Amino acid sequence: MSAGEEAAPAQPQKPEEQQQQQKPEENQVVEEKTEAAPAAAAEATEEQKPAAAEEAPAEPQQPEVTYKSLVLSAHGGYDKVKLQTKKGQPKPKAGELLVRVRACGLNFSDLLARQGVCDRLPSMPVTLGMECAGIVEELGEGVTDRQVGDKVMVVSRYGLWQELVTVPANRTFIMPEGMSFEEGAALLINYMTAYMIIFHFGNLRPKQSILIHMAAGGVGTAAIQLCKTVKDVTIFGTASASKHEALKESGVTHPIDYRTSDYVDEVRKISPKGVDIVLDPLGGSDTCKGYNLLKPMGRLVIYGAANLLTGQKKNIMALAKSWWNQFSINAMQLIASNKAVCGYLLGRLDDETELLADVVTTLLDLYKQGQIKPKIDSVYPFEQVGDAMRQMQEKKNVGKVILVPEVPKEEAKKEEN
Amino acid sequence: MSAGEEAAPAQPQKPEEQQQQQKPEENQVVEEKTEAAPAAAAEATEEQKPAAAEEAPAEPQQPEVTYKSLVLSAHGGYDKVKLQTKKGQPKPKAGELLVRVRACGLNFSDLLARQGVCDRLPSMPVTLGMECAGIVEELGEGVTDRQVGDKVMVVSRYGLWQELVTVPANRTFIMPEGMSFEEGAALLINYMTAYMIIFHFGNLRPKQSILIHMAAGGVGTAAIQLCKTVKDVTIFGTASASKHEALKESGVTHPIDYRTSDYVDEVRKISPKGVDIVLDPLGGSDTCKGYNLLKPMGRLVIYGAANLLTGQKKNIMALAKSWWNQFSINAMQLIASNKAVCGYLLGRLDDETELLADVVTTLLDLYKQGQIKPKIDSVYPFEQVGDAMRQMQEKKNVGKVILVPEVPKEEAKKEEN
Repeated sequence: MSAGEEAAPAQPQKPEEQQQQQKPEENQVVEEKTEAAPAAAAEATEEQKPAAAEEAPAEPQQPEVTYKSLVLSAHGGYDKVKLQTKKGQPKPKAGELLVRVRACGLNFSDLLARQGVCDRLPSMPVTLGMECAGIVEELGEGVTDRQVGDKVMVVSRYGLWQELVTVPANRTFIMPEGMSFEEGAALLINYMTAYMIIFHFGNLRPKQSILIHMAAGGVGTAAIQLCKTVKDVTIFGTASASKHEALKESGVTHPIDYRTSDYVDEVRKISPKGVDIVLDPLGGSDTCKGYNLLKPMGRLVIYGAANLLTGQKKNIMALAKSWWNQFSINAMQLIASNKAVCGYLLGRLDDETELLADVVTTLLDLYKQGQIKPKIDSVYPFEQVGDAMRQMQEKKNVGKVILVPEVPKEEAKKEEN
Repeated sequence: MSAGEEAAPAQPQKPEEQQQQQKPEENQVVEEKTEAAPAAAAEATEEQKPAAAEEAPAEPQQPEVTYKSLVLSAHGGYDKVKLQTKKGQPKPKAGELLVRVRACGLNFSDLLARQGVCDRLPSMPVTLGMECAGIVEELGEGVTDRQVGDKVMVVSRYGLWQELVTVPANRTFIMPEGMSFEEGAALLINYMTAYMIIFHFGNLRPKQSILIHMAAGGVGTAAIQLCKTVKDVTIFGTASASKHEALKESGVTHPIDYRTSDYVDEVRKISPKGVDIVLDPLGGSDTCKGYNLLKPMGRLVIYGAANLLTGQKKNIMALAKSWWNQFSINAMQLIASNKAVCGYLLGRLDDETELLADVVTTLLDLYKQGQIKPKIDSVYPFEQVGDAMRQMQEKKNVGKVILVPEVPKEEAKKEEN
C-alpha cells in the first residue's frame, strides 16, 4: 500500500505548482474569509470580488484568474477550514484535466482530517475535499478520452474543495445525462464505498439480512438503495427517531433508534439468530457488538471510525477508548464461529484504477436504470463550510451534505429579493 | 454455536440406542479386526461372516443382523481405528432414516479426531466418519420425503463409517441418476466446503485469481472444478511435483511445488501484486503468508489446520508451533490493508439445515450439468482403514480417498482368480 502514498494528489500541492506560487501574481493567497452565519454568505462573496481585483492589477490586458479554495491550516474545530482566494490559472500536466468545480461532497474523512485524525494528508496548509463534480476546462498532454466541456465527477484523496482543480484524467468519470452537479458530487465516494462493502466484501444475496448503522447518512442512504437491488433483503437501519419515517420510505425494514435503545437487543428481538451482514462505520466497541450479531457465515465489514468524532476537536479520550476497545481476532476464533471480518478504506485504494473504474461503471448503469439516486440533504456555499461540517458531524443530515463555490441559486434569489 | 453441540449426531451414540445395547443380542460388539496389508483384506471379510453367525444362534428363525463399524477406542496412530462387528438391527427414530452404507469419504477432520485434536466428539469408543452414501432401508416416523430404496448421500459430524446408520432425514440428500456410491461419498463435504469458501466467503468473480493449497486433495479438486465455473479465473495450486501434470489437466493455471520452492515467491514472480483469494487449510504461519499475499480487496479463507498433522500421533510441538504462529489481526490493520479474513468449519454448521440444503441443491445442479465430478483417488475396504488414512495423511492422494464396507469388486475379482 505504500505505493499509494505517491498516487494522485489533487492540485495544488504538487511541486510544480508550488514553484508557480513563487511568482507573485500566480496561485497566491489573497484573502481568508469563512462565515458561519448563513445570512452573511452572499455578502461574503460579494466582498471578495473587488478585493481580489484590487490585488491583481499587474497585467490588466489579461484579466487575472482567481479561484476559491477551502484550506485547512491548523487542526481543530469547524473554524479551522478557511476560505482563501487563490490567483493564477492552474495548468493541467500530462494526463491531467483542469476542472471548474461546481459542487463538492462532504465525507467523514474530511472531518477526521480537520481534527488531525488522519495520517495520509500532506502537511498543512492543505485544501481538503475528496470528491467533486464540474466541467472540464482544459486537457493536459496525452488526454484523449475527455473533452473540454465534459461534465465529470472527480475523486481524490484531498484537494477538491476548490473552484479550479487539476486532476489525473483517470480519477474523473463522465456524468450521465440529466445528473445534476450536486448528484455528481454525492455519488462517487458514498456509492463506491457502499457498493464495495456490500457486494465485494459483504457478498449480499437474496433473502439475507443486513444491519446498516447511520442509515440516514451518505453511505447509509447509498447502502439502502443498493440493498434494494437484491431480492428480499431485510434491512435493519439505525438512526435517531426523527429520521425513521424517511428510512421506511427509502426501504429500511426495521429502523432502530440507537439513542433510546440498545440496537443489539432490538435486532435480536426481531431476528434472534442475528444478521448476515453488519456494515460498521463506528469502530471501537461497536465492532465487537457487530461481530457478535452475525449469524454463522456472516460478514462484518468495518469501514470507518465515526466513534472517534465526539466533538469539534480531536478527543484524546475517544481515541484511547476506541483503541482500548479495538476489535481483534485470531484464526481459531474465526473458524469456530464461521464468520468473516473485512476492513475497507477507499482512500487506500488509489492504485486500483481498474477496479474503481469497474465499480463506477456499474454504479452509473444503476443510476441510468433509476435504481440508485443520490439524496441531497443540504447545499452550502464554500463560505459556510463550518455549518456544513457541523450538519454532518452532529448527524443532522438525511443524505449527502454538499458544498458549492457559488451561493446556491435559491439562496441567491432570496438575497436578491 | 453452542446449540450445535446437541445437533444431529449419527447412530449409534444416542441414548436410546445405548439402551438397546443393554440387550445382550443387540448392537453388541462381537469382533475387532483391522488389517493393514491389502492382500489380507478379502480374507478378513470372509473370516468375519462365520464368526458373526456363530455368535448369534439364539433366534435361528429370525437371522441376527450384524454390521461392520470402524470404531476409535483410543487416540493415536493409524491402528487406533478398529473394525468391529455390531449386532442388532438399528431402528430409525422419528424423522430419521436407516441407511445401508455403500461407501464412505475420508476427511482431514477424521484424521485429527483420531489423534485427539478435536473437541467435539463424544467420548470413546466412537464410530468415526462424516459422510457416506447408501440406500434407504427403513423410514422413521414422520419421514415423507424419502422412500425405501432411495440412494442417498449423508453428512454428519461422526458415526458414518459403518454398514448401517440411522440419520436425520434432513442430513440426507437424494443422489442424482448415474452417480456412483463412491462419488456420492466424495461429494458432500469437499464440495460443500469448497463451494462455501469460494462463493459465500471468497466471493470469486470473473478475472480474479486464487491460491489453492493442497490442490490435489479432496477440497482442492473440488475447488478447482468450482473455480472453472467462473470465467477467466487464474488458479495457483500447490502440490508436490509428481501431481502437477494432473493439476494442469484439471485446470490449474500455475502448479507450484511447495516442497522445493517458497510458494509465496512463486506466486509473486507470476503476479507481483498477489492474488484475490487465498484458501488456507494449513493454519499456523501459512495463514499469515496467505494474508500478505492478498491484493487490496482480497479475501483469506481459513478452513483447516492441516499443519497440525505432522505424523501419526498428536504432535505437541506442532500444536504449540501453530498456536504460537496463530494468525491474529485487529480492525485498524484490516482497514489499512483493505482485506478480509474468514473462518470456516463445516462441522460447526450443523444447525444451518436450510443453508446447507441450498448449497447441495446448487452442487447437484452443477453435477448434472457435468461441471463438477468427484475424483476418486482410491477405494479401500473397511479392513484397510489404516492404509486409507495413511494415503491421505501422507498426501499421496489425487482426489478423494474412499472406504467401503465390502471389498471393492475389482479387488474381490483378483482374489477369486
